[in-house]
Amino acid sequence: MFKKILIANRGEIALRVIRTCKEMGIKTVAVYSTADRESLHVRFADEAVCIGKAPSKDSYLNIPNLIAAAEITNADAIHPGYGFLSENAEFSAVCQEYGIKFIGASPDMIDKMGDKATAKATMKKAGVPTIPGSDGLLKSVEEGKKIAQKIKYPVILKATAGGGGRGMRIVKDESGFEKAWNDAKQESGAAFGNDGLYLEKFVEEPRHVEIQIVGDKRGKACHLSERDCSIQRRHQKLLEETPSPVMSKFKKLRDKMGDAAVKAAEAIKYEGAGTVEFLVDKNGDFYFMEMNTRIQVEHPITEEVTDYDLIKEQIKVAAGITISGKNYTPNLFAMECRINAEDPANGFRPSPGKITNLHLPGGHGVRVDSHVYAGYTIPPNYDSMIAKLIVSGQSREEVITRMKRALSEFVIEGIKTTIPFHLKLMDDKKFQSGDFTTAFMDTFDMSGIQ
Amino acid sequence: MFKKILIANRGEIALRVIRTCKEMGIKTVAVYSTADRESLHVRFADEAVCIGKAPSKDSYLNIPNLIAAAEITNADAIHPGYGFLSENAEFSAVCQEYGIKFIGASPDMIDKMGDKATAKATMKKAGVPTIPGSDGLLKSVEEGKKIAQKIKYPVILKATAGGGGRGMRIVKDESGFEKAWNDAKQESGAAFGNDGLYLEKFVEEPRHVEIQIVGDKRGKACHLSERDCSIQRRHQKLLEETPSPVMSKFKKLRDKMGDAAVKAAEAIKYEGAGTVEFLVDKNGDFYFMEMNTRIQVEHPITEEVTDYDLIKEQIKVAAGITISGKNYTPNLFAMECRINAEDPANGFRPSPGKITNLHLPGGHGVRVDSHVYAGYTIPPNYDSMIAKLIVSGQSREEVITRMKRALSEFVIEGIKTTIPFHLKLMDDKKFQSGDFTTAFMDTFDMSGIQ
Repeated sequence: MFKKILIANRGEIALRVIRTCKEMGIKTVAVYSTADRESLHVRFADEAVCIGKAPSKDSYLNIPNLIAAAEITNADAIHPGYGFLSENAEFSAVCQEYGIKFIGASPDMIDKMGDKATAKATMKKAGVPTIPGSDGLLKSVEEGKKIAQKIKYPVILKATAGGGGRGMRIVKDESGFEKAWNDAKQESGAAFGNDGLYLEKFVEEPRHVEIQIVGDKRGKACHLSERDCSIQRRHQKLLEETPSPVMSKFKKLRDKMGDAAVKAAEAIKYEGAGTVEFLVDKNGDFYFMEMNTRIQVEHPITEEVTDYDLIKEQIKVAAGITISGKNYTPNLFAMECRINAEDPANGFRPSPGKITNLHLPGGHGVRVDSHVYAGYTIPPNYDSMIAKLIVSGQSREEVITRMKRALSEFVIEGIKTTIPFHLKLMDDKKFQSGDFTTAFMDTFDMSGIQ
Repeated sequence: MFKKILIANRGEIALRVIRTCKEMGIKTVAVYSTADRESLHVRFADEAVCIGKAPSKDSYLNIPNLIAAAEITNADAIHPGYGFLSENAEFSAVCQEYGIKFIGASPDMIDKMGDKATAKATMKKAGVPTIPGSDGLLKSVEEGKKIAQKIKYPVILKATAGGGGRGMRIVKDESGFEKAWNDAKQESGAAFGNDGLYLEKFVEEPRHVEIQIVGDKRGKACHLSERDCSIQRRHQKLLEETPSPVMSKFKKLRDKMGDAAVKAAEAIKYEGAGTVEFLVDKNGDFYFMEMNTRIQVEHPITEEVTDYDLIKEQIKVAAGITISGKNYTPNLFAMECRINAEDPANGFRPSPGKITNLHLPGGHGVRVDSHVYAGYTIPPNYDSMIAKLIVSGQSREEVITRMKRALSEFVIEGIKTTIPFHLKLMDDKKFQSGDFTTAFMDTFDMSGIQ
């Protein structure tokens, strides 16, 4: 087992990893930017190394600085968390080169799954259902139009290097194709330095349902059931839940999707914790979207229903320990609200600043993952998520009432947060029904949220 | 279902009950003494009524004031929590008289189980194993000596109205009998206004193992497995865990004890949540100690492994809803550390005062039940427990390492707490082995605790 793990991340996920390391008796090294001196992850690690200035490129994305920190502290492994360098093939390769175990995917695996067109082709070959569309990158606008005609409108244009909704355009009919093509090309070129586009059938009334998998060095994988992440705003997840309400509508859907995810993982001999994201349409058909070769923000809901510590599983698998291989069928329910330092009454505008008063909710079925405390100043430089409120219970209804109770206890003063939004969401009839799609937020009434 | 519940208690258990009521859509009324104006239970209830001055007899033990508060606020039920009036037959009777549902045992049941000698006789009759001893109260010191000779020394003298270790004396041989008799009589007379004594065989190397039961109006009961409360100091529980490590030593012991507890509950047609306390000796034989006709402080560890909300079960049963009747066999592990405002380095001396800084632990498998917050002043008038730290996991070992991690994150400044004691306890080899008795604390090395 590893003796010392450096966590190449910040905020709640850095703290999350430190917690598990402590429980496993593994020493930890926190890294931090000059903006993060006061963060809890710095205080709770055994050692902490400043790796540069606030802009991420000078610190959390700076590979030489991270490797230097690992070398200085004699860390034998690096956990990248999510975001930043967690799916960066170069970082994974450099770690390998320096004899430091990267607790994540191999460079080759990251390359394969990071490029969406390649990932899709790989999955199609492995027999995982994929969305009909172009065979890899489109060479021209004409080729795009031809394929769109064949698979029928509406279609969607996507940036191969994309993520977070950038470089995507829905096209309803041929008249709008050329403009969408130009817009998507320009946006993806600017955002990712890569303007390659591909085309897909636009899935109607889709839900975002992802399957958590864990694979080991033997190439054996298992799944820990699904998470429904359909409540999104501009492709940013706001709330996740398990089981997905869609599972009760279609018989055997979980088994089918779980099998497909395991097949996907085993086809590429995936090692580590990963997530296979699918779209499920109104008929219960599902299509591979992408595979994330890292821990997800929303992993705690799976932990709450399975009792597995997914970070521990990641570390064990990285250390060469094989998995039991048992799939999990949920008999509990869990939900996660992302508490962001944003003003939901003003278009979710970021609201960094000093937390003057803080009271966390507690009690039965309530878990909080957070790196903030009273007196902490949220820097403006990073992601606005400041806490994850995770609630579990014996039914979806119980979870909703418990979440409402926990949200109502949650006190964060000095900044605006998404708590009022989540409180309104819990009272929403459509949300309560479980019958919604990824378009839910397009029509959600934000009025009355303070 | 009830529309409004008054919680005749304070602190964390009042908050605990409010949380469940909120989740059930039931309105809540908090009551508070003048010393408790700033307590969270007052802030989180829908209504709050001041019921008198700080001494409990003027407020939390004052039945007319409580009934008046319920009448004024139109509460249709009262939850008594634990301690105070939770096992007071008169209070239960007065509630009945005023048409307010008492969420606890009937006056008759409280009387039956509150008097230890009567309880023991009832259980013996029902076929529940009891400790050999006197048949009810002893009439004279001579009668006591005669019985002690018959059941063999060591024996223990107990006050029939006793509790918390007061009015108890262990007698090793006949030479010490008379002094022990006189001491116990005097102590119990002073403490309870009742100097009735009974005698029992002193159980060697005992563990305190209790079974959680729930019974309904039909007289049907089920059990939710055990809690081991052997880590005690002067009969005050410091840490509780489930499952009991003793269960792995004796085959079928859980089934036998569970059956006995269900038999005990059904024999008296027990309605509500209750706990049957047993002593388990070095041979795996077990003996009925007492039955608590209320929720226990340590109920959350059962909740964490069963996913049941025991307060919800109490409320449902009180409202006449019948139980499913399924017994529970644990496949998870949980532990609770009682965090008291006491100085463990100075004989656990109470340490009330202002909490200047507070940071609660979080993350996977960690639950905190507490009514305190940063800036809160702990009044000197009440029980010193300020938080319960409950941890669950897949093995006892995982729970211990997780508890250690959670304790190390727990920051309470301004007062002394039992956190340093619990941290040392987690590192103790004997504790880690699971092989200990209720005498554990007698030889526990308190040195080095700050």
